[in-house]
Amino acid sequence: MTILEILDYLAISVFAATGALSASRKQLDLIGFIFLAAAAGIGGGTFRDLILGQLPVFWVKNPNYLLVCIAAAVALYFTAHLIESRYRLLLWLDAIGLSAYAAVGAAKGLAATGSPVVAIVTGMLTAAFGGILRDILAGEPSVLLRPEIYVSAAMVGAAVYTGADMLGLSQIACFLIAMAAAFVIRGGALRYGWTFPVYKGRPGRHPDDVM
Amino acid sequence: MTILEILDYLAISVFAATGALSASRKQLDLIGFIFLAAAAGIGGGTFRDLILGQLPVFWVKNPNYLLVCIAAAVALYFTAHLIESRYRLLLWLDAIGLSAYAAVGAAKGLAATGSPVVAIVTGMLTAAFGGILRDILAGEPSVLLRPEIYVSAAMVGAAVYTGADMLGLSQIACFLIAMAAAFVIRGGALRYGWTFPVYKGRPGRHPDDVM
Amino acid sequence: MTILEILDYLAISVFAATGALSASRKQLDLIGFIFLAAAAGIGGGTFRDLILGQLPVFWVKNPNYLLVCIAAAVALYFTAHLIESRYRLLLWLDAIGLSAYAAVGAAKGLAATGSPVVAIVTGMLTAAFGGILRDILAGEPSVLLRPEIYVSAAMVGAAVYTGADMLGLSQIACFLIAMAAAFVIRGGALRYGWTFPVYKGRPGRHPDDVM
Repeated sequence: MTILEILDYLAISVFAATGALSASRKQLDLIGFIFLAAAAGIGGGTFRDLILGQLPVFWVKNPNYLLVCIAAAVALYFTAHLIESRYRLLLWLDAIGLSAYAAVGAAKGLAATGSPVVAIVTGMLTAAFGGILRDILAGEPSVLLRPEIYVSAAMVGAAVYTGADMLGLSQIACFLIAMAAAFVIRGGALRYGWTFPVYKGRPGRHPDDVM
Repeated sequence: MTILEILDYLAISVFAATGALSASRKQLDLIGFIFLAAAAGIGGGTFRDLILGQLPVFWVKNPNYLLVCIAAAVALYFTAHLIESRYRLLLWLDAIGLSAYAAVGAAKGLAATGSPVVAIVTGMLTAAFGGILRDILAGEPSVLLRPEIYVSAAMVGAAVYTGADMLGLSQIACFLIAMAAAFVIRGGALRYGWTFPVYKGRPGRHPDDVM
Repeated sequence: MTILEILDYLAISVFAATGALSASRKQLDLIGFIFLAAAAGIGGGTFRDLILGQLPVFWVKNPNYLLVCIAAAVALYFTAHLIESRYRLLLWLDAIGLSAYAAVGAAKGLAATGSPVVAIVTGMLTAAFGGILRDILAGEPSVLLRPEIYVSAAMVGAAVYTGADMLGLSQIACFLIAMAAAFVIRGGALRYGWTFPVYKGRPGRHPDDVM
């Protein structure tokens, strides 16, 4: 297995776990767990493969990715009740998945097109897509609309990967610093409530601001 | 016309009718009827063709599928008021469409990849996708989150098709028993409120369960 | 640049602006502005390229489209507070984008398939898709469900383009009358509250109508 595949499995399994936790919060049945685990786990990569035109998508080529999602769903269906704060766990697993997916998405976008802009956007969109899809399907408020930094962490991770690759670093080094950058930012947002200045955050500078 | 095409038209026309019924509940205009009919009718198959990489998608290759959706929308725009319980009809048509789409999706997934896992997932996802898309677009609570069995019926139908095909049954037999299996399960869920054990359904075994 | 490219940039930049305005209404941070601007700006065209099988999608082939979205997001992040009625501006920009996208979508659908039905549906779906995606992501009530004419304007624009092309008019004439038709209809809906007869609009003729 290449480092890219290992990270892919990591990202997919933790995102699948967040989907299953979301299903547990909605009290769905086992198939509901599998459905949301698959949507969250493979949603981002499916979207990435579609826009890059690498079809059929990765989990049709290699169904092991689906088995990982199913395993995560089954495991959580029988153990989620043991976890005291499931939503908190969901957010931290989501942070790990976001970091790995951002780096993998940037790597695949760069490999497919050679364009840094495309790589950054591919990394950002695919990292954020699974979580957004999970929230829409589960009828939860989208993680996108929460004030804490989320998509930005994915974008930074993808940008760091792209920059490191252009500097000629080894692939494993690119992955490690990109994931670290994304995880530190998203983790800080979760732990300390980091936010970027939001739109309303500038009233002092614009007293004449009209809504 | 092959049996596959006949079932495709059946699934698409009944899903299109559910989209039109959804539009009638939201009191949209005729184009709103057509839009939701098309989204529900061809949504699942569009998703299936995208992930399998069979592009352009089926209704671009053969616009008759679109005409079926438009005809269903127009027919219901002028007749839906005659139906006493439109939501009940929507659910039963949805059950027929779900059964047919699960079998067709599994058949196409199997033909494209030869993988039983992919066939089951393709059948499940594409059968459920149209209804979920319809509910999201119409702003209705997703059928996915209702307690009665839904996605599971699609998964069973797809699994039965795949199993029957691997046992060497004729294609028409595969379709018939797969559709019957899915329809009996979904119909039972609608008629008798069948559910699988949901997450909360196990409190007795886990008195220390913490939400 | 061809007329098609110019209209593409026009449609994408105004749709991107509507996404950024939506982000300002939700008080997101700069990356949230970029994300919603990109979703609204390139969403419809991404969907169009996927269903037509023209992959990778247009903005992967030419990242300038992304830069346009990013520029629109940044510009509005710093200026949106100067605009008195942001939602009104959003609706009018959306109307311009809808008109341009309907014509471009019909042109690309016709070029790819030669089928008038496909061209009309492609124009309609891709023009409406960006705005619907924006509203779903931003958690706003979908523009699709508002009573005023919306999708219909896109459909008329796409149909006028297709008809004009079949009459042998020059491409620039096709674009101009198609965009004018769509914009007049959508603009009238915004300015004068034009609606088509909605489902409830026929109670007089059907006193026995049962909901």
